[in-house]
Amino acid sequence: MNLTQIEHLGIAVKSIEACLPYYEGVLGLKCYNIEVVEDQKVKTAFFKIGETKIELLEPTSEDSTIAKFIEKKGEGVHHIAFAVPSVQDALNEVAVKGIQLIDKAPRKGAEGLKIAFLHPKSTCSVLTELCE
Amino acid sequence: MNLTQIEHLGIAVKSIEACLPYYEGVLGLKCYNIEVVEDQKVKTAFFKIGETKIELLEPTSEDSTIAKFIEKKGEGVHHIAFAVPSVQDALNEVAVKGIQLIDKAPRKGAEGLKIAFLHPKSTCSVLTELCE
Repeated sequence: MNLTQIEHLGIAVKSIEACLPYYEGVLGLKCYNIEVVEDQKVKTAFFKIGETKIELLEPTSEDSTIAKFIEKKGEGVHHIAFAVPSVQDALNEVAVKGIQLIDKAPRKGAEGLKIAFLHPKSTCSVLTELCE
Repeated sequence: MNLTQIEHLGIAVKSIEACLPYYEGVLGLKCYNIEVVEDQKVKTAFFKIGETKIELLEPTSEDSTIAKFIEKKGEGVHHIAFAVPSVQDALNEVAVKGIQLIDKAPRKGAEGLKIAFLHPKSTCSVLTELCE
């Protein structure tokens, strides 16, 4: 696979508002976008750092996968997203190698990107997203 | 704080050897260094991706903090490390802002870098490392 960079890190938090003083006031990063992704039942906040981004993920509903993640593991890094030239090509390539896919075809994620998730069972326990 | 980039992501794994086929064979990253950090009781494996790195952390002892992390939360992302021009200056700056420090002064980490950790209680639950 041709991974050029880490596109973003997804971090599950109970409250974006409660975390802004740390990310902005302490780390000095600037939140440039807050967006609700309805079908994922999350509110997202984005910060740029070098060539990558940090995406805070706050559940908007108790049955959001992010709410369940926080309940099970606590707040923390939820997924790593890699930038690829073509999500569909990358999915085809890793499927042949036996990687279990959560999304068999690209779908629309935050920031209008084409995305797909790989199952942590196949990725050494790290939920992994591919972004185009 | 002047954060230029994510220096690396630390990922706790039970076995580096078991993860190499995924990181090298599937993601196409190249492991360029495997190193034991005796005082941390971990074996580390490094992969470069764009301007950042992935550091796999395998416990070498049952009382390693990485072994305890895996026991409590399972394998997964253990910490985020940010590159800073001066770890000491950054520690001084965040301490004034009330951030709880794990290391009050820089110490030597993997790859010969000066490092210090901030306590996840002060960093929205993400164990955070500063690297110089």
